[in-house]
Amino acid sequence: MLKSVVFLLRCNSNRIVRDQVRYASQALPQLSSEKYNVKRKQFGTVQESDINYFKSILSEERVLTDENDVLPFNIDWIKNCRGQSKVVLKPRNTEEVSKIIKYCNDKHLAVCPQGGNTGLVGGSVPVFDEVVLCLGLLNKIISLDEISGVLICEAGCILESLDTYVRERNLIMPLDLGAKGTCQIGGNASTNAGGLRLLRYGNLHGSILGIEAVKADGTVIDCLTTMKKDNTGYHLKHLFIGSEGTLGIVTKVSINCPVLPKAVTVGFFGVKDFQSVLKLYESAKLSLGEILSAFEMADFNAINSSVTNLNLPNPIDEYPFYVLVETHGSDEGHDAEKLNRFLDKEMESGLIIDGTVTSEPAKMQTIWNLRESIAGSSLTRGYVFKYDVSIPLGNYYDLVPMLRKKLGNKALDVYGYGHIGDSNIHINIVVPEYTKEIGSQIEPYVFEEVSKLNGSISAEHGVGFRKPQYIHYSKIESALDLMRELKTLMDPKGILNPYKVLPEK
Amino acid sequence: MLKSVVFLLRCNSNRIVRDQVRYASQALPQLSSEKYNVKRKQFGTVQESDINYFKSILSEERVLTDENDVLPFNIDWIKNCRGQSKVVLKPRNTEEVSKIIKYCNDKHLAVCPQGGNTGLVGGSVPVFDEVVLCLGLLNKIISLDEISGVLICEAGCILESLDTYVRERNLIMPLDLGAKGTCQIGGNASTNAGGLRLLRYGNLHGSILGIEAVKADGTVIDCLTTMKKDNTGYHLKHLFIGSEGTLGIVTKVSINCPVLPKAVTVGFFGVKDFQSVLKLYESAKLSLGEILSAFEMADFNAINSSVTNLNLPNPIDEYPFYVLVETHGSDEGHDAEKLNRFLDKEMESGLIIDGTVTSEPAKMQTIWNLRESIAGSSLTRGYVFKYDVSIPLGNYYDLVPMLRKKLGNKALDVYGYGHIGDSNIHINIVVPEYTKEIGSQIEPYVFEEVSKLNGSISAEHGVGFRKPQYIHYSKIESALDLMRELKTLMDPKGILNPYKVLPEK
Repeated sequence: MLKSVVFLLRCNSNRIVRDQVRYASQALPQLSSEKYNVKRKQFGTVQESDINYFKSILSEERVLTDENDVLPFNIDWIKNCRGQSKVVLKPRNTEEVSKIIKYCNDKHLAVCPQGGNTGLVGGSVPVFDEVVLCLGLLNKIISLDEISGVLICEAGCILESLDTYVRERNLIMPLDLGAKGTCQIGGNASTNAGGLRLLRYGNLHGSILGIEAVKADGTVIDCLTTMKKDNTGYHLKHLFIGSEGTLGIVTKVSINCPVLPKAVTVGFFGVKDFQSVLKLYESAKLSLGEILSAFEMADFNAINSSVTNLNLPNPIDEYPFYVLVETHGSDEGHDAEKLNRFLDKEMESGLIIDGTVTSEPAKMQTIWNLRESIAGSSLTRGYVFKYDVSIPLGNYYDLVPMLRKKLGNKALDVYGYGHIGDSNIHINIVVPEYTKEIGSQIEPYVFEEVSKLNGSISAEHGVGFRKPQYIHYSKIESALDLMRELKTLMDPKGILNPYKVLPEK
Repeated sequence: MLKSVVFLLRCNSNRIVRDQVRYASQALPQLSSEKYNVKRKQFGTVQESDINYFKSILSEERVLTDENDVLPFNIDWIKNCRGQSKVVLKPRNTEEVSKIIKYCNDKHLAVCPQGGNTGLVGGSVPVFDEVVLCLGLLNKIISLDEISGVLICEAGCILESLDTYVRERNLIMPLDLGAKGTCQIGGNASTNAGGLRLLRYGNLHGSILGIEAVKADGTVIDCLTTMKKDNTGYHLKHLFIGSEGTLGIVTKVSINCPVLPKAVTVGFFGVKDFQSVLKLYESAKLSLGEILSAFEMADFNAINSSVTNLNLPNPIDEYPFYVLVETHGSDEGHDAEKLNRFLDKEMESGLIIDGTVTSEPAKMQTIWNLRESIAGSSLTRGYVFKYDVSIPLGNYYDLVPMLRKKLGNKALDVYGYGHIGDSNIHINIVVPEYTKEIGSQIEPYVFEEVSKLNGSISAEHGVGFRKPQYIHYSKIESALDLMRELKTLMDPKGILNPYKVLPEK
C-alpha cells in the first residue's frame, strides 16, 4: 500500500513558492470605485505643491507620478481591485514616513500603505486617489541576537529574505506563507498573517515582541522591545498588528525566531471521510506531539483540481479526503520513528487507507506543491468564489456539501481544503462565469452559515476593502463601536487606509 | 560525577506550589495611602443607598460590608499594601458585573477588580475606599473542545483547577505559575502572566483566543471567539490582556491548551560562570529543540539561600551557577536520549561540571522545589528588595555583581535567578531592615541600569500600584501619551483600578 519508503536526509523546507499573478497592462481590472459603487470621501486632492514637498523630503526618483510607474501600485495581485492613485512615495526610513504622514494629515490627504501587495481582500491598493506609501525601501535588517533568536528589522524586508538570513544562523521565521517571496514583514504584521505552521509556531500577536509604528499625526510610537517578557503598561503593539494599516504604519518589527529544525518529514495520506480526518488529527496531536508542524486537509475535488488542471502528480491513489502531515524536529531518527509508528497504527486502525512518508526534499516539495497549488488551480476554468473562513472543527467541513447541494449544477466545482490545526478552511466555488445571480446565491449565505457555526468570516486574509460589509457576521455591534472609537482616537481625520476594515455606519 | 541516573516514569509535573503568605490580623501592614503618600482622587463615597442597590442585584450574602470580612480583600499577599475599602461585591455572572460597573460609573464610584489577589505590585488591592469587585464566583468551565484544545471558562476559575480539568483530557494549561493554586485565569489574562514555561508555550497574547470583558460604562465586549485564526477587524482582546483591570474587567476567556506531554524530564547542572550558562542555553536550544520546556538559572547565593534558610537538599555539589533544564515530550525514550546526549556532550566540553537528570516525579519535585523556593527563602533574614526585570541575554547577569559592588556590606546578600529562555531575571537584595537610605541607593539605580541595557523594568509582575512612577524607564513619552488616551477613551471617569499602571502627568 505504501508507495514510497522513508528517506532521511537533512533538509530545509524549501517549498516552491507559487508563481504570483502579476499585473498585465492588456487586461486592466475595472475600477474598484465603479465595481463596488463606492463614494469618495472628502479628502484633499494631491497638488503640484504637495508633490514638490514630497520631493523635498525624499528625492526626485522616490516620488513616482508617471502613470505607468504608478499603475502597478493601483492593482492588487489577484487583479480584482484597481485604484486611481496619482502618486507613489518611497520613503527609506521611519523619519521620512513620519514626515509624509504628518504632512498628509495636516493637508487631509488620504494614504494607502503598501507592502508586498499580496493581500487578497483589496486592502493594500488605493480605492480612489490615495497617496500610496510604498514601504519596500525600509528593507534593512537591524540586528539578530542568535542566542535569544530575536530579529529586529524594518517593515519592508521580504519574508523569504528574512527566512534565508536567519536560516543561515540556525533559526527560522515563525511564519511561512505561499506569498513569502514577495510579501513584507510589515505587511505580515499589519494583517496578522497566519500561514501554514501557525499550529506549531503560534500567531504574530505571540511572536512579534515589539513594533515601531507611525501614528496618523506623524508621531512615532517606539515599542520596539526585544524582551519576551515586558509587562510595563498597555501592550500597544497589538493596536498595529492586524489592523491593516488603518491605525498606524508599521515601520520596524522585532520578532522571535524559533530554532531551525534539523529534520523535516512529510506524510501524505488517503482517508475515507471527514470524520476520519478529524480522528487522525486528534491521533497526530498525541502521537507526534511537539514535532507536528502542519496538519493540512484537502477533499478529493481540491486535490483533483491540482492534478487535472495543472498536471501535477499525486503520489498516492484517489481518495475522498487527503491529509498532509509535516514534522519539524531536532532528531531525524526520532521523528521518523514517531511518524512511522503513527502511520502503522492508523493504517491498522483503518483511519489511513494509503499513504507515503518522506524526508527527501524533492518528494516533500512534490507533496507541498500539490497542496499549495490548489488555490490557483481552477482560475482557468471560469470564475472562482474563494472563501477563507474558520469554523469549529466539529462542523469544519459542513459548508462544502451544503454549497454543493444548494448550487447544484450551477457550479462547475465546489471544494474545501485548509489548515485543520487552525480550524481554517478555504472553500472554492468554480462557476463558468461571474454573474450577480450566482453571487447573490452564495453571499451572504456563506457568511451567515459561518456565523451560525460560531466561525470567523475571515480567518487569515483580513477584512480589507472587500469585507467590511460582512464584518458584523463575526463582530458584535459593541465591538464594532469600540473599533470605530479606536479609529477616531488614533486617526481622527480618517486618512489612513480609508474605505477599509471599518463598515460604514 | 553524575549523582543519579535517569529514571523514566510517566508523570505529570505536579510541583509543590509554594505556600502563600496569608493575612494575619496581628500584623496589619501600613495603609498604602500613607506609606506611599498618595492623595485620594475625587470619586464618590459608597452610601447606604449604594449598598442597598448592590444587594438588590446580587443578594445579601454576596455584598460584604463587615470590617473583618472586608479586611483580607484590602491586603495584598506579600502584605506590602493595605487599602481602605468598605465593601466587597461578589457577582456570579457577566450580567451582574456589567450592572455593578455601570452603576459605579454613573455614581462615579471607583472599582478595584480582584482575582486571586496574588499580584506582587499591589495592583489587586484598593488604595482608598474603592469598591472591591471579587471575580471568584465567576468560576464555571463553559466548554472544552478536546480535539482543538480550546477551553472556554469564566474569569474566576483557579489556574490549577483548570489545569487539573484539562489534564484529565490529555491537555495542559499553556501557563504555569508558582501561585497557580490561588491565582485566577481572569487575573492571569489581565496581568499577562508569564511563568515558567513561556519559552515553550508562548505568552498569553498568543494563547488567549478570545475575551469577554466589561467596559467602564458597563458595555459587554464579547470577543469570545474560539478560532485560532480570526482576522475580522481590530484584535480588541489585547486591550484587556495585560492592562491590569484599568481598561475593562475580564469576565470570560477562551484559551488554547497544548497537548499533555507524555514524558517530563528534569536536569540540574553545576556550571562555572555565567558565560557558560549562556553557551549551555544556546546548546540546549539546538540539542533539545522542540522538547525544551524550561531553562532556568540561579547563582550560587540564590540556591544557597534555599539550602541554608529552608533546609532544602541540593542534589549536586556547590557551584558558582546552576542550570535547571526541563523537557516536555511525547516519547520518554527519545527525550531521555536527547537529554543524555546533551549532558554527555556538555560534560565533555566542560560547560557542565556536574549534573543530575531524572524523570522520577519525587526527584523532579525536589529540584523544582529548590528553584521555586528561592523567592521566599530570605524573607526571615531581614527585608528583601525584589526586582523582576528583563535584560538582553548578553548583559543578563550584569546587575548582580554591580549591585554587590555598589552596596558592599550594607547588603546581607544579593543574588540573581530566573528564566534565561525569556531573558527574565529576578534580583533579590537582602538587607537587615528597610531604611530609606538603602532604598535610595537601590532605586531608581536598578531601573536606570535596566533601561540603559534596553531591558524591561517589569518583566512579568506588571506595573500595578508600585511601579507607575518608574514606567518611563521602559516606555517612551509618546507611548505613555497613547496609553493615557486609551485610558480616557475606555474609562473616561477613571473608575477602573485607579492609582494603578498609569503615571501621574
